[in-house]
Amino acid sequence: MPKIVTLTTDFGLNDPYVAEMKGVILGICLNSVIVDVTHNVEKFNIRQGALMLASAAPYFPEGTIHVAVVDPGVGTQRRPIIIQTERNVFVGPDNGVLMLAAEAQGIKHIYKIENERFFAVQVSNTFHGRDVFAPVAAHIATGNVNLEEFGPEISDAVKPEFSKIRRTKGGLVGEVLHVDSFGNIITNVNTKDFERLKTSRIKVDLPNLKLQLNFTKTYAEVKPGEPATLIGSHNYLEIAVNQGNAAAKFQVQVGDKIVVSPA
Amino acid sequence: MPKIVTLTTDFGLNDPYVAEMKGVILGICLNSVIVDVTHNVEKFNIRQGALMLASAAPYFPEGTIHVAVVDPGVGTQRRPIIIQTERNVFVGPDNGVLMLAAEAQGIKHIYKIENERFFAVQVSNTFHGRDVFAPVAAHIATGNVNLEEFGPEISDAVKPEFSKIRRTKGGLVGEVLHVDSFGNIITNVNTKDFERLKTSRIKVDLPNLKLQLNFTKTYAEVKPGEPATLIGSHNYLEIAVNQGNAAAKFQVQVGDKIVVSPA
Amino acid sequence: MPKIVTLTTDFGLNDPYVAEMKGVILGICLNSVIVDVTHNVEKFNIRQGALMLASAAPYFPEGTIHVAVVDPGVGTQRRPIIIQTERNVFVGPDNGVLMLAAEAQGIKHIYKIENERFFAVQVSNTFHGRDVFAPVAAHIATGNVNLEEFGPEISDAVKPEFSKIRRTKGGLVGEVLHVDSFGNIITNVNTKDFERLKTSRIKVDLPNLKLQLNFTKTYAEVKPGEPATLIGSHNYLEIAVNQGNAAAKFQVQVGDKIVVSPA
Repeated sequence: MPKIVTLTTDFGLNDPYVAEMKGVILGICLNSVIVDVTHNVEKFNIRQGALMLASAAPYFPEGTIHVAVVDPGVGTQRRPIIIQTERNVFVGPDNGVLMLAAEAQGIKHIYKIENERFFAVQVSNTFHGRDVFAPVAAHIATGNVNLEEFGPEISDAVKPEFSKIRRTKGGLVGEVLHVDSFGNIITNVNTKDFERLKTSRIKVDLPNLKLQLNFTKTYAEVKPGEPATLIGSHNYLEIAVNQGNAAAKFQVQVGDKIVVSPA
Repeated sequence: MPKIVTLTTDFGLNDPYVAEMKGVILGICLNSVIVDVTHNVEKFNIRQGALMLASAAPYFPEGTIHVAVVDPGVGTQRRPIIIQTERNVFVGPDNGVLMLAAEAQGIKHIYKIENERFFAVQVSNTFHGRDVFAPVAAHIATGNVNLEEFGPEISDAVKPEFSKIRRTKGGLVGEVLHVDSFGNIITNVNTKDFERLKTSRIKVDLPNLKLQLNFTKTYAEVKPGEPATLIGSHNYLEIAVNQGNAAAKFQVQVGDKIVVSPA
Repeated sequence: MPKIVTLTTDFGLNDPYVAEMKGVILGICLNSVIVDVTHNVEKFNIRQGALMLASAAPYFPEGTIHVAVVDPGVGTQRRPIIIQTERNVFVGPDNGVLMLAAEAQGIKHIYKIENERFFAVQVSNTFHGRDVFAPVAAHIATGNVNLEEFGPEISDAVKPEFSKIRRTKGGLVGEVLHVDSFGNIITNVNTKDFERLKTSRIKVDLPNLKLQLNFTKTYAEVKPGEPATLIGSHNYLEIAVNQGNAAAKFQVQVGDKIVVSPA
């Protein structure tokens, strides 16, 4: 049974870097099925890479191996890690890029990758995607290596700030994760968080925006130019403007704090 | 025997949407071979999506399943359909995006997709590519579902305007279908239309361009910087400039009317 | 045992051309595993295509078939060729695009592709990628055709100028091969050339940049915004700026002459 290996990086599609990772993976496990999530993550934007992976991961079957390489600390002491969850295995740098997706699935074990037997013969200082993460993922895909063989279990992996939701009485405090190319404001309030509020009318409190809104299912339920709040295709709570640019209209930026509560 | 599933969308490569479709397909039919036609169709440009699919489809083997999602009407009453032709199966919205490719192959049956048993458990209002078209295509790829099981046969599917050529005495009136990334001007005058003109020297009449040209077989038959007219690799009549950008040079845009006649 | 077929082209990702090549390959050898190196080679930039392929090829397993189509001479008398090396087979036009990668592996035989039995039924004059190179590569992938069957062995294939390094007393004269999407300046001074200099501090002399630099192993060894020189992930000497864009900062372009000498 072939294993799926997904790749999420900030390498772009102009260079041969993604192909080199695929060559390494197929050289170790020709039977794997490689799928690109995206290689157009903004350079060094760990939060954006984490969101892309967290959006895509739920749609892949059990046993999929997800590799994410947005890695500004490559060549320094940041650790390479493997995260085992209930459904999948995640491979990448210990900088938070894997954590949003992994926590949503329920983390079982985290291993520090140490065993150089599974690395490229020569590990470059600039490209662990090819020389560490790709071969490790491929060895996992073969089914012949236990995760314990890659290195010791650790308990102090980096937890990114951007995945934390704080629950206050009656409400949620989160942040703006991403503004997409339409100007839609994507928050870190996921479907489950939102459902716990048990309301169809919410107050949204952003630095430049205080709104009371009916929760809708589509942008088109409000008039053109009007704001809407809905669960978008990333499965996170979005603030959008029908046929408009919500982020520009409300001067909202990635990282802005957002408070959501029943109205 | 694995089935090929092709994907043509306007989702771009920055977001995880294409990967989510692939995760869904592989979760249902791990044995399928997924090939991207392009995901860079201009947003909501049904004509361009139809041309991309119509250009690519003839080169895929019998039994290939083609999915195209350029879908401005998602969430409204537009229907999801399956078209069975002599050679392939097409899956997508009933807005014309499948029709140019399907008609070229000879349409046998068109089905309205209704059977929710083959959809995602939860169908979003904004992303039928992932929640309807991907799982339907994957179930077809398994070979275990007859097309009749997806829904009733229909006879009133949308036929797009942009594939029509008008014949005048001695000439043809068509339009510019596409400008490719080399700047080549691709018209909707196909090989068969052109051969009916029975000439090797033609007049081309575009808003900013009136030319008399010998029909050539390659760009390189004219000097660098000079215009040429030929049947291009899409199998449609093209106006090109050897080692140059014809669309920029002659200020030609998609949708421009073109009159082609013997010189 | 499936064969890997890689594709390196200047076709971009907006058009269906790459998909058409894949459709042809899968139609002949459904069992092949197709991997994109890149399709974003600058139009007609044979040097850049050659670098992309030369960078990626070492990471693919023995037996891989590499197809590269950067082909400004398509439709003229330039020859289609197959190069057999110690490890791989290369397929493409005889214009140098295959040569950098093939020479690095050790060339055993070069064949001129002549046998039309392995071409598309109708060979277009503008798209040999689809009509000649894709089907030839797929027939090789089947394992059922000996390379001699495609055409006669030749000894006068085109050798590109851009791979040549001139050694002066104490230094090296090379050129800028490529600027990657991070703005890193990649020269044609490879690891072996550099090691012959036997120094850890070098002078770099570019049109807008004269620097003395300690050779480093990672970008991160210098402060953000500072220049570094290192062997990069292409295995060539690079000039980079930590967390910055070196090519923009120093106004460096592909083709610029570079002199490297011990400081």
